[in-house]
Amino acid sequence: QAPAPAAAAKPKRQSYEQRAEVAKNAVSKQLLNLMAKKKTNLAIAADVASTKQLLALADQVGPHICVFKTHVDILDTWNAEVQGELQSLAEKHDFLIFEDRKFADIGSTVVAQYSGGLYRIADWAHITNAHLVPGPGIIQGLKQVGLEKGRGLLLLAEMSSKGHLATGSYTQAVAAAAEEHQDFVAGFISQTPSSWQPQSSPGLIHMTPGVQLAKGGDNLGQQYNTPQSVIGGAGSDVIIVGRGIYGASDPRETAQQYQEAGWSAYLASVSA
Amino acid sequence: QAPAPAAAAKPKRQSYEQRAEVAKNAVSKQLLNLMAKKKTNLAIAADVASTKQLLALADQVGPHICVFKTHVDILDTWNAEVQGELQSLAEKHDFLIFEDRKFADIGSTVVAQYSGGLYRIADWAHITNAHLVPGPGIIQGLKQVGLEKGRGLLLLAEMSSKGHLATGSYTQAVAAAAEEHQDFVAGFISQTPSSWQPQSSPGLIHMTPGVQLAKGGDNLGQQYNTPQSVIGGAGSDVIIVGRGIYGASDPRETAQQYQEAGWSAYLASVSA
Repeated sequence: QAPAPAAAAKPKRQSYEQRAEVAKNAVSKQLLNLMAKKKTNLAIAADVASTKQLLALADQVGPHICVFKTHVDILDTWNAEVQGELQSLAEKHDFLIFEDRKFADIGSTVVAQYSGGLYRIADWAHITNAHLVPGPGIIQGLKQVGLEKGRGLLLLAEMSSKGHLATGSYTQAVAAAAEEHQDFVAGFISQTPSSWQPQSSPGLIHMTPGVQLAKGGDNLGQQYNTPQSVIGGAGSDVIIVGRGIYGASDPRETAQQYQEAGWSAYLASVSA
Repeated sequence: QAPAPAAAAKPKRQSYEQRAEVAKNAVSKQLLNLMAKKKTNLAIAADVASTKQLLALADQVGPHICVFKTHVDILDTWNAEVQGELQSLAEKHDFLIFEDRKFADIGSTVVAQYSGGLYRIADWAHITNAHLVPGPGIIQGLKQVGLEKGRGLLLLAEMSSKGHLATGSYTQAVAAAAEEHQDFVAGFISQTPSSWQPQSSPGLIHMTPGVQLAKGGDNLGQQYNTPQSVIGGAGSDVIIVGRGIYGASDPRETAQQYQEAGWSAYLASVSA
C-alpha cells in the first residue's frame, strides 16, 4: 500500500555551501563558505566608543562570529595602527569586517567618502552598506571604488526601528537593484526576506540587526528579535547582536550562546 | 466704475525676515535673518578633498554665501586646528556651517555618530542633515545631542539624483515629521516644495542642491537645476552650488554671480 501523500512540506532552504557556489560577489561567496566552515551565522555589532574595548571585544568573540560590525565614526581613536590590529584579528579568528556606514549620498560623493577621509573605509572593511534612497547611482559610485578591492555591499532593504520608511515599493526597488548588481552587492540588511516576492537570489545574504535572546526594545525606537524568529521564521541568514553580547558580563560565553542559537535555527531551517 | 477683478494672482511669498519671526528652531531663525541682511541665498557645496583648498575656498566665497556645506569625511586632514580655522572663517564672513552627513541610522547610533568619533560634528556644524528612512527615532537621537548646542537639522525630503526613492508617501512622511519637531528641524533638502500639499510651515527652510547656471548632469546620476528654476519655479529658499563655483577659474567672482542670480529670483518671488 502506498503511503498517504504528505502535507505540503515547507520548502527546504539551500545550505550556505550550496549558495556559496552560485554567489556572484567575492565577499558573499567568501562569507557563505566561512559560515559553513566555522558553523556560525553570528555577527556582532560592536557599538562601543573605546577603540581599546573594540579590539578586546574582537579578540574575545572572534572565534564565535562570522562578521564583526563596526561604526568607525564613533571610536575615540582611529589610525593606521588600529586599522592594522583589527585586520590582524580578522585574520587570526577568520571573520569579515563590516563597516556599518549606511552610505546615503549621490554617486560622486560616496566615491570620495568610501575611499577617502580619515577612515578610508574601502581599505579595510570587507563589507559596507548603503541606503538606496539616492537611487542606483550610489551602487555605481561605491562599486567604482570597492569592486577592484574585492569588497561587497549590503543594501538596506528593511529596517528594525519604529516607523521606518523602508517598506513596500521601497523594499521592492532595493531587491531589484541588488539583483542587477550582484557582482558588487553581497546582500541585504532585512527583516522578513521569507515574505519577499520574488525571493532574492541564493547568492545574496540577508543580515538582520536588533537581535537578542529575549524580545524587547529601547527608548529610541529600536525593536528586538530572537535568533529563532530571525533565522527560522523570517528567513534571514545572519543575526546581528549588539548590546546582548558586548553588554554581557562575559561577552565570549554569551557570543557562544548566540552562535549555538543561530546555528541550531539554521540547521532546522535547512532540514525542514 | 469698479476695476475688473484681476486674474487669480500667484500668492506672494513671505520674506525671509517675516519667516524668521515665526521660525521655531534657533538656526532656522538665525539663517533667515542672515540671508536677509547679507542678501544671499547661496550655499556652496565644498566637495573638495584638500583641507587647504577647503579653507581657502571658505575665505574666497565667504562674503557671498549664507551656508558653507562640508563633507568632513572626504577631507585629507581634520583636527581641532582645522575646525577652529573653519569656525573663525564662519565668524569673519558671517555664514553657517552645514555638515552634509546624511545621517541614516537608528537613534542610539546617531547620538554617538553626531557627538563623537574623530569629527565631533555637533561641536562645529550649525546644521546637519538626515534621512528619515530609519523612522522618527533618528530625529529624537540627533535632537538629544544638538538641541542644547543650538543646532538645526535638515531632513532629506526629495533628492536630485536619478531614480531616487524619496517620493510620494516618503516625502509626505518627511514633511509631517519636520512639522512635529520644529524645535530642532530647521527645514529640508528638497526639489519642488511649491508643489507640496500642504505647504510646509514658513519657519522651515528649503535647500536645493545640484544647481548650476546652465542645465545638465554627470555620469553618476546627478541632475542640475538653475537658480531661477529652484527659487522662482520650485519655491525653494537656498541654492546649493558645488562644482559650478569651486571648479570655476575665479570662485569668488562666480559665487557673486550665483549670489546675484539667486537673490534676483528671490526678490521676484516675494513681489509676485
